[in-house]
Amino acid sequence: MSHIQDLLKQHGVPKKEVYLDWINGSVVDKEVLDAMIPYYLEKDYGNPAITHRIGWSTLDFYERKKRQISKPLKVDPQSIAITHSFTESNNLAIKGLTKMYKGRKKIIVSEVEHLSVIHAAKSLFDQNYKVDILPVSNDGTINLDILQEKIDNDTLLVSLQSINHEIGTIQPIKEALEIVKDKDEKIIFHTDATSAFGRIDLDFSKTEVDLATFSSNRILGPKGIAGLYIKEGIKLKSIYEGQLSVEILAPDVENSPLLAGFAKAVELQFANFEQIKNHTIKLRDKLLYGLHTSIERTDINGPAGDRRAPDNVNISFLGCEGEALTVESSMNGIYASSGSACTSRVLMPSHILTAIGRKPEEAHGSLLMTINRLNTEDQINYVLETMPKVIGRIRSITGGIEL
Amino acid sequence: MSHIQDLLKQHGVPKKEVYLDWINGSVVDKEVLDAMIPYYLEKDYGNPAITHRIGWSTLDFYERKKRQISKPLKVDPQSIAITHSFTESNNLAIKGLTKMYKGRKKIIVSEVEHLSVIHAAKSLFDQNYKVDILPVSNDGTINLDILQEKIDNDTLLVSLQSINHEIGTIQPIKEALEIVKDKDEKIIFHTDATSAFGRIDLDFSKTEVDLATFSSNRILGPKGIAGLYIKEGIKLKSIYEGQLSVEILAPDVENSPLLAGFAKAVELQFANFEQIKNHTIKLRDKLLYGLHTSIERTDINGPAGDRRAPDNVNISFLGCEGEALTVESSMNGIYASSGSACTSRVLMPSHILTAIGRKPEEAHGSLLMTINRLNTEDQINYVLETMPKVIGRIRSITGGIEL
Repeated sequence: MSHIQDLLKQHGVPKKEVYLDWINGSVVDKEVLDAMIPYYLEKDYGNPAITHRIGWSTLDFYERKKRQISKPLKVDPQSIAITHSFTESNNLAIKGLTKMYKGRKKIIVSEVEHLSVIHAAKSLFDQNYKVDILPVSNDGTINLDILQEKIDNDTLLVSLQSINHEIGTIQPIKEALEIVKDKDEKIIFHTDATSAFGRIDLDFSKTEVDLATFSSNRILGPKGIAGLYIKEGIKLKSIYEGQLSVEILAPDVENSPLLAGFAKAVELQFANFEQIKNHTIKLRDKLLYGLHTSIERTDINGPAGDRRAPDNVNISFLGCEGEALTVESSMNGIYASSGSACTSRVLMPSHILTAIGRKPEEAHGSLLMTINRLNTEDQINYVLETMPKVIGRIRSITGGIEL
Repeated sequence: MSHIQDLLKQHGVPKKEVYLDWINGSVVDKEVLDAMIPYYLEKDYGNPAITHRIGWSTLDFYERKKRQISKPLKVDPQSIAITHSFTESNNLAIKGLTKMYKGRKKIIVSEVEHLSVIHAAKSLFDQNYKVDILPVSNDGTINLDILQEKIDNDTLLVSLQSINHEIGTIQPIKEALEIVKDKDEKIIFHTDATSAFGRIDLDFSKTEVDLATFSSNRILGPKGIAGLYIKEGIKLKSIYEGQLSVEILAPDVENSPLLAGFAKAVELQFANFEQIKNHTIKLRDKLLYGLHTSIERTDINGPAGDRRAPDNVNISFLGCEGEALTVESSMNGIYASSGSACTSRVLMPSHILTAIGRKPEEAHGSLLMTINRLNTEDQINYVLETMPKVIGRIRSITGGIEL
C-alpha cells in the first residue's frame, strides 16, 4: 500500500461531505455529460477538416457549438479560438502576441494575476521583454493611477484579470481599458476572465477588450477545453506547431465531446444566470460572514458586497497553519484549499495574499472556498456548524500560540 | 442553411457506412466511455495537488492510471509526462529540450515526419537552430547511411517516427538508435510513436530511446490526452507556463476522466494485442491487395508485409483527383482521407507522398485508410465491391484523361 493509500485509509469517508474546492477540480453537470456521450460513441467524431460526410457533419457541429459558446460574450464565433485550458489561453494571448508584434517590449500585469499569466510574461525575459508588475490595494483591486503612470510607448500588452481567482476581487476592467486605450489605442488589452465567465456580465461587443480567456471547467463543463476571444484584427501566432486544421492557433485541439460539453455548460449557466448568481451570493455571504462572526481572530480576504465575485469565500484563520486547515476540514468532510491552490504543494504563501499585505503566516492560515449551483444551504449550515470545532482543534494543538 | 448543411443534405446518409479514417478522428470504445463516466460525475474529480480527501484520492487514482498507461512500454510511470495531444508531446520533446540543452544547434528529422515534428523543429530557426532533413527511400524508409553522415558534434537531437502515419512504413528505429548512440551517446533520440503504440512492440526499457510520443485517441481512447516518455536523466522545460501541479511539463493538464479512458484503452488494446494485430493485418492485406488487383492503374504507397503498419492502407488511383476521391467514396458510405490528412484543406500534395517520389498528381489521387478492431471483414468486402465503381465514375467524369 502506498503512502497515499495509507493516508486515505486513516482518513476514512466522512458521513457528510461538502465540496467547496470547485476552482481546483470539478465534476460536470449530469446534463453536460449527457450532451457529451453521443459524441464519444457515434456522432460527429470525425476531423472537421476532412472532406467526407463525417468530416462535414463534424465541421457543421463544430460551427454550431462555437456559436453557442460565443453567444453570452456577444461576439462573433469566428473570434473564438478553442484551446485545451485557460492556462493555454493565457499563454497564447501573451506569447502568441509577442510572436506577431515586434518592437514594443513591455508587458504590464498585476501582481494578483494567475501564475499562468505572470509566468508566461516572465518567460519572455530571455527575449528582452520587460514585465512591469502593477500593485493592488488591500482588497486586491488594481491601482489605476499607477497603471496610468506605467503605460509608455514601449508598452505592447496590458493583462489584467476580470475577477481574481483566489480572493474574488472584481477588477475595474472598464476603467482600466479606458486608461489604456485613451493613452495609446495601439496597446493590446488582455483579460483573464476565467473566474468571471458565467458570474458577471461580459459583453465584449461593447468594450475595447482585445483578448479574453474563459474556460469550461469553471462552469461545470468538462476540463480539457477552454477559449480565447480574439478581437477582429488582432494577430496571434500559435505557441506550438502542428497540422493545419479548423483551430489554427491550437493544432490538434478539435474535440467534439468536450466541445459539446462546453456548449451545454454555457447554455445551462446562462439560461439561469441571475438565479445562479443570486443563489451563490446568498450562500457566499452566509458562509463568509458566518465564519467571520462565529470564529475569533479571522480576517476576510478580498472585497465585500458587489465588488466581490458571487462565488468566492476566502478567510484567514490566525494561529492556524494551511495544511492543518485543509486536512482538519477534510477529516470533517469539508473540502477547500489553502493559501493558493497553485502553490499548495510547495509550501509558499499565496502570492495573492502577500500582495494584499497579508503576512506569510496569515496567508498560510487561509481557506479558499468556492460555491456553485450544486451547493445547498444545508451544506453551508453544516460548514458553519463544523468550522468552529475545526479551528478550535487546530488552535488547541498549536497551543493557541499567536503565530 | 449554411453551405455545409446544404452539402450534408445533398449527400444524404448512405445505406451502408464504413469508417476507415481512424487516423483523423475516432469514437472511443464503449468500455472506454464506461470507464470514464464515474470520473465526470462523482469520482476523483479533484486536483491531485490539493491536500484533502478528494485531492488525495485523485492523486492515488492518477498514479494508478499512469502505471497502467506506462506498463506496455515497460517503463517507470514516473517517466511519463501526460500532455493534451501527440502534437503537444512532439512539441514538448523538441522545444522543451532546446530550452534545457544549450550549445548544440542541429536537429535531424526525416522528411516523412508528422508536421508537428517538422514545424516544431523549424520554428527554432529564429533561435539559430539548424534542421537537417533526412531523405527516405521510395517506400518511406529512412536512409541510415545518410543519417550516419549527417550526425556531427553540433547535433542535439534526432527525431524519427517509429511508424509513418500516412504510408505505414515501420522505420528501422533500433538501427537508427545504434548509429546515433554509437557515434555520440550525448545525442538525444526522440521517436514519434503515435502510429506505432498498440501496433508493434515498443519496449523502451530495452532501448536507448530518450523520448517517445504516444497517444490515446489512436487506440480508441478519448482525444485530449497523450503521453511523452522521458528517459531518466533527460531534462525538459515546459513549452507554456502555469501553476505547479502533478504534471510539471504540462500545467493544468490533469484530467481524471480522460486519464481513466486512456488507461482503459491501453488495457483493451494490449490485452488483445496479437489478436487485434492479426485481425487488422488480415483486413489490411485484403483491402490493399484487393484494391490494387481489381482496379487498374493503382500504386500502393509504402512498404509490403512485415515492414508495413498492421492498420495502414494507402493507395494512389491514377487519373483521379483527391477531393473527388474522398467525396465520391463518401457518397457511397466509405470514409477515408486523401493525400495527407494534415493538408486536406489546403490543396497541397502530401509532403510524405512527394518525399517517396510520387508526382503531385499521384499524391493528390491517393486514399489513406486505417483499420482497427471495430472494422469487420464484411465492411472490407463492401469497400472492395464498391471502390471499382467509385474509381470508374471519377475516371469517366474526368474523361479518363491521363493526369
